[in-house]
Amino acid sequence: MSAAYRLASREDHPANTVVRVGAAAIGADEPVLIAGPCSVEDRAQITASARSVRAVGGGALRGGAFKPRTSPYGFQGLGEEGLALLAEAGALVGLPVVTEVMELAQVDLVSAYADVLQVGSRNMANTALLKAVGRAERPVMLKRGMAATVEEWLLAAEYVLAEGNARVILCERGVRGFEPRLRNLLDPAVVPLLRTLTHLPVIVDLSHAVGRRDLVAPAACAAIAAGADGVMIEVHPDPGVALTDAAQAVPCAELPALAARLRAVGHAVGRGIAAPIELVS
Amino acid sequence: MSAAYRLASREDHPANTVVRVGAAAIGADEPVLIAGPCSVEDRAQITASARSVRAVGGGALRGGAFKPRTSPYGFQGLGEEGLALLAEAGALVGLPVVTEVMELAQVDLVSAYADVLQVGSRNMANTALLKAVGRAERPVMLKRGMAATVEEWLLAAEYVLAEGNARVILCERGVRGFEPRLRNLLDPAVVPLLRTLTHLPVIVDLSHAVGRRDLVAPAACAAIAAGADGVMIEVHPDPGVALTDAAQAVPCAELPALAARLRAVGHAVGRGIAAPIELVS
Amino acid sequence: MSAAYRLASREDHPANTVVRVGAAAIGADEPVLIAGPCSVEDRAQITASARSVRAVGGGALRGGAFKPRTSPYGFQGLGEEGLALLAEAGALVGLPVVTEVMELAQVDLVSAYADVLQVGSRNMANTALLKAVGRAERPVMLKRGMAATVEEWLLAAEYVLAEGNARVILCERGVRGFEPRLRNLLDPAVVPLLRTLTHLPVIVDLSHAVGRRDLVAPAACAAIAAGADGVMIEVHPDPGVALTDAAQAVPCAELPALAARLRAVGHAVGRGIAAPIELVS
Amino acid sequence: MSAAYRLASREDHPANTVVRVGAAAIGADEPVLIAGPCSVEDRAQITASARSVRAVGGGALRGGAFKPRTSPYGFQGLGEEGLALLAEAGALVGLPVVTEVMELAQVDLVSAYADVLQVGSRNMANTALLKAVGRAERPVMLKRGMAATVEEWLLAAEYVLAEGNARVILCERGVRGFEPRLRNLLDPAVVPLLRTLTHLPVIVDLSHAVGRRDLVAPAACAAIAAGADGVMIEVHPDPGVALTDAAQAVPCAELPALAARLRAVGHAVGRGIAAPIELVS
Repeated sequence: MSAAYRLASREDHPANTVVRVGAAAIGADEPVLIAGPCSVEDRAQITASARSVRAVGGGALRGGAFKPRTSPYGFQGLGEEGLALLAEAGALVGLPVVTEVMELAQVDLVSAYADVLQVGSRNMANTALLKAVGRAERPVMLKRGMAATVEEWLLAAEYVLAEGNARVILCERGVRGFEPRLRNLLDPAVVPLLRTLTHLPVIVDLSHAVGRRDLVAPAACAAIAAGADGVMIEVHPDPGVALTDAAQAVPCAELPALAARLRAVGHAVGRGIAAPIELVS
Repeated sequence: MSAAYRLASREDHPANTVVRVGAAAIGADEPVLIAGPCSVEDRAQITASARSVRAVGGGALRGGAFKPRTSPYGFQGLGEEGLALLAEAGALVGLPVVTEVMELAQVDLVSAYADVLQVGSRNMANTALLKAVGRAERPVMLKRGMAATVEEWLLAAEYVLAEGNARVILCERGVRGFEPRLRNLLDPAVVPLLRTLTHLPVIVDLSHAVGRRDLVAPAACAAIAAGADGVMIEVHPDPGVALTDAAQAVPCAELPALAARLRAVGHAVGRGIAAPIELVS
Repeated sequence: MSAAYRLASREDHPANTVVRVGAAAIGADEPVLIAGPCSVEDRAQITASARSVRAVGGGALRGGAFKPRTSPYGFQGLGEEGLALLAEAGALVGLPVVTEVMELAQVDLVSAYADVLQVGSRNMANTALLKAVGRAERPVMLKRGMAATVEEWLLAAEYVLAEGNARVILCERGVRGFEPRLRNLLDPAVVPLLRTLTHLPVIVDLSHAVGRRDLVAPAACAAIAAGADGVMIEVHPDPGVALTDAAQAVPCAELPALAARLRAVGHAVGRGIAAPIELVS
Repeated sequence: MSAAYRLASREDHPANTVVRVGAAAIGADEPVLIAGPCSVEDRAQITASARSVRAVGGGALRGGAFKPRTSPYGFQGLGEEGLALLAEAGALVGLPVVTEVMELAQVDLVSAYADVLQVGSRNMANTALLKAVGRAERPVMLKRGMAATVEEWLLAAEYVLAEGNARVILCERGVRGFEPRLRNLLDPAVVPLLRTLTHLPVIVDLSHAVGRRDLVAPAACAAIAAGADGVMIEVHPDPGVALTDAAQAVPCAELPALAARLRAVGHAVGRGIAAPIELVS
């Protein structure tokens, strides 16, 4: 039917690709914890989040400045102000930052602030955007589309790779299912399946999959147990007042316990996770 | 969760919206046949297609110039040359033309040639593109995303409407299913369901749903029987040599019989379809 | 993987199978209307339903006596009393009756009252039951399972055929989808797809698919337009008091208009539907 | 709509139900490993399997004697001979045995040999069978249906509980998805979700979900990491000659390493798994 992926294929590239972002090496032995709020809301919120992520040994800070919302009337993010606050908070604690880029015209702007460009589920097949981030000087975190097969997802990665950007991180986030009690359906067997097909690192965003705070920890442990190169988790200093995705945000105060559990699971499957550090602010 | 659609809702806008495109009135009593090749390939192909669509009383000519392909190595369309050929063929036979716009930067270019801007399934949630076509001076045909709920689709339409473009045509094209023998799953009950929710016209692209030439006619009849305001069908003078979607293209030579059947079904459910016309070339 | 269907395949049996039930010939030129209440509730209800089905030229009366309910606390049907009332009502108006058999032990009992044994979606892969109805002296209407592929469904039919019962009618009823506003997802393209694979007749139960009374007529017209050999529709003299599936039951008073529309669509696609008859009660 | 589950609900039964089977306590602190071949094929095969399961500290032996096959022409199991061989092998190594019961008429027979009655996915909504095992003197392992919501699954459990059998073990095995490279889609977040809804123990059959041997270990680790009360895994002394499900069977020789990894993951999430034992044959 369509030509298969080549640059993304493990066949011609047997060695794992490792994407270095700040001090983190995504795809190396140690799984990486990426965490932060769904949206950057203000300096206090993003700074508190950054500190808590850094304190538990997290590898990167996430936070949305341009938000792809289902409704045009929902909060659309702080835009460039959000990017600046995110970059500032990352710099303060010494963490690289990951944030979404939603359109071609934003690629340069977002690249000026962010260490990793995230392409969201809604844009997985937005080939114009894929080509644009393929020409950017930043690693790309490519989320799986809501109903994309693994083959389609790898072909989307191929669009980025074919433009010359070899630093692609795949991010599984679940697919649409029929269970009304879960936001999406996330099968971690996709992680070892991808290992057989591609050399690209794979992380798992489980917050958007489960959609409920109380299911985040078990789902994150499952992802690490299945061999993911990292997990991405939404946290918030005070989820009760979060402007977006409040139901699934883990309070920053619970992050240390969660990180400890992930570390233990990582060790159990033979892959260490960074230890918490002493933060001198 | 997210604010609901307002401008798209039938509640505040009880009367059906009718979108006039050339001589066709999409959303009025008479269902409209939109047909043409998947991709514009050359002058002979698009001209032959245009003549056959016009001859059966079709309301618009479709044809892709910028093609959203799963693989970066697939044929990506002729670009502006394709737009020019499409517009030329439409003008020759007196039909308005529908073609896809895939990115913001193309909106002005495509608007210069096309009568209707199509937003494809892959871009249904590309909010930047939705806003851009919302500011264009052309009607927009918005395809349903591959795993979009009806609510998400109407909210995507809301993005267009909210920018001031009231001429939105919804285009159902099926959703992802698990049946390996069908490309997508297309439930025509979505058409009467949409009638209860929105005043916008609804057409059905069944070629992409069935994915097989021999299922096109029954599926098209089903769509008209369910009350669609029109159907969009891929045709080709010689499907055996089509560059894209060859398996689902109906030969132009079979279009008269198909159109006659659609007309009969339209009458059966109380909605006439335009009669064939004498073409003097 | 598994051996393919043989007896169900059109390859070795090119001619359509026609299943005669009472005066109806399911799979012949004329599509058949099967209607009746979800559950047999009492003599007045089933008799009134039977009369209205007969009056519009319906080919069979449906009605549940043993009901497969999701909850053990729901109304489970009248059992043998329901069978007797159903058979009585059918005999009164001269219509054969269709009813569900849920377990082996009921096959003889249900066969004593019913003209067609229905195997429900929940039991499509209940191979013990399939074998049992394969040995019964009654035609079998085999509903598609909620997540069954067409291949799995035909292999379920093969279980019945392999026991010697050649009178199998396939009944499409939609599959599970993710759209919260529709009970199931029913793609009528399955009908022409089945035509290419099997010689067995195919009817469509759309009441369970749409789950809403106001969508029944368009969905039924779509099924006939797609070439179904018949439709099965839930009706009730007074849906407001129905014990089961009240939301999707069409009032008997609306059946004449619905049947007339189906007849018109049937003619439009070259297949007549029986005319209404004068009932002398 | 339908009455909700009551006996299965955690609301009225806050304490976890623990089902004791042989020496294993399913639902207690220690997750249980259940393993064995898809089908019992002969004495040598089931005995070798039993020894390997026992040697790694497994809690129960599984093996099919009555096989629910998609095709009537596939191997349907050894029947009672298989039951006898399974029971013999279990007794030999001191493990309780789990096997599927497919119809009412088999409940007594299977109960005579088996310690746990398994109700398969295809029969999850076979209410006659559910009631019958609800009256049996054996614990019931109830698999989730291929397209069942969690609510429907708990209502199926309710059918068993309502007949007086309180020893119900839920077995997640994935649902139908659209990814052609995976047999089913298994989201382990269902495990912690069930914890909030029900007091019943939950195990995960991942072999049928992944459908490929090389994905079994990561998927099993994910299930334990998500908090499952056990996993069920298909093993075979020589998968190359297995009569059913050969592609997903783990060679017995690889079971010790797999069990060790599961044990480590269990400890990491605070739940031990039984240690391997010295087998004196």
